[in-house]
Amino acid sequence: MDNVLADFDSEFGKRWKERHPEQSDFDLSQRKYFELEDNFPDEEKEEAIALMSEEGFFLSFPPVQDAIESCKEMVREGLDVRICSAPLPFQWESCVKEKYLWVRRYLGEDFLQRLMIVRDKTLVKGTVLIDDKPQVQGMVKHPEWKHVVFTQPYNLHRQGVIRMNRWSEWRQVLIPLLLQ
Amino acid sequence: MDNVLADFDSEFGKRWKERHPEQSDFDLSQRKYFELEDNFPDEEKEEAIALMSEEGFFLSFPPVQDAIESCKEMVREGLDVRICSAPLPFQWESCVKEKYLWVRRYLGEDFLQRLMIVRDKTLVKGTVLIDDKPQVQGMVKHPEWKHVVFTQPYNLHRQGVIRMNRWSEWRQVLIPLLLQ
Repeated sequence: MDNVLADFDSEFGKRWKERHPEQSDFDLSQRKYFELEDNFPDEEKEEAIALMSEEGFFLSFPPVQDAIESCKEMVREGLDVRICSAPLPFQWESCVKEKYLWVRRYLGEDFLQRLMIVRDKTLVKGTVLIDDKPQVQGMVKHPEWKHVVFTQPYNLHRQGVIRMNRWSEWRQVLIPLLLQ
Repeated sequence: MDNVLADFDSEFGKRWKERHPEQSDFDLSQRKYFELEDNFPDEEKEEAIALMSEEGFFLSFPPVQDAIESCKEMVREGLDVRICSAPLPFQWESCVKEKYLWVRRYLGEDFLQRLMIVRDKTLVKGTVLIDDKPQVQGMVKHPEWKHVVFTQPYNLHRQGVIRMNRWSEWRQVLIPLLLQ
């Protein structure tokens, strides 16, 4: 969900820059590591985690470009769409609550049924998982789904994977996988 | 989770009786229908739903007898325990938030990783599902897990099923299924 449907990085960047006007060259657009705090020097990590733990943070993410319309299109065209999201391990309560509020706000009441909050996505059945994490691992060694990497700067190093660079490509990327 | 680990009915009954001292024979212990509100006459359904929607309701459930110790034992003995819980469809936000708070309070921080919030449990991989719902259905016609019915008055009509009547039976019921 984060950085696939909901634009985590843009909201984080906005809040960080408000607090650090002295960091005029602050830029997340080329960040290297999947966990956001790992992109900060040690002395700033704690502040980054505190920012992500603020009440209202998750609800304030703008949607990723074309994500909302694409999800609605997939459902209209008969796909059984589920949103599978892992809560941050240092911030459970308002994070999970706000994920439901976010889905209701942007995708509507009916989509709440489709939201699944799980740390280990390998335990979930499905055909395709669209995820920005470079490698999705967990208890199940061979998950049912094929991982489609939703392109973000921190997963560009993964070669030979199936990618979706933007939501406007969803038919082109997903339909061949669903027909296999 | 509800009425398997966390005693939903006892807390609901306590709150209902506080509001309705005139209903001296109020008793949930033999209730017939899985959805709690379905056990009320039409004119009281709305009040029952409002009560279940109160902030703090889910967090206030006492644990079911032996549930906490049994979960910890299962983990100590090497079982990969997950808690799979469906939020109420009319009350998402504080319900999901409080499920995390409840698990932290009674099972500890480490167990938060094991909590999965899903409406459709057939989408989850696993060997056994311990659930009080008479029949667990969803998108997947033949789920991976075997359903062990956690005995409650509203599931007594289900014949020919595998049952766990109380947590003290967990080894006796689960180990044969896990070894199959």
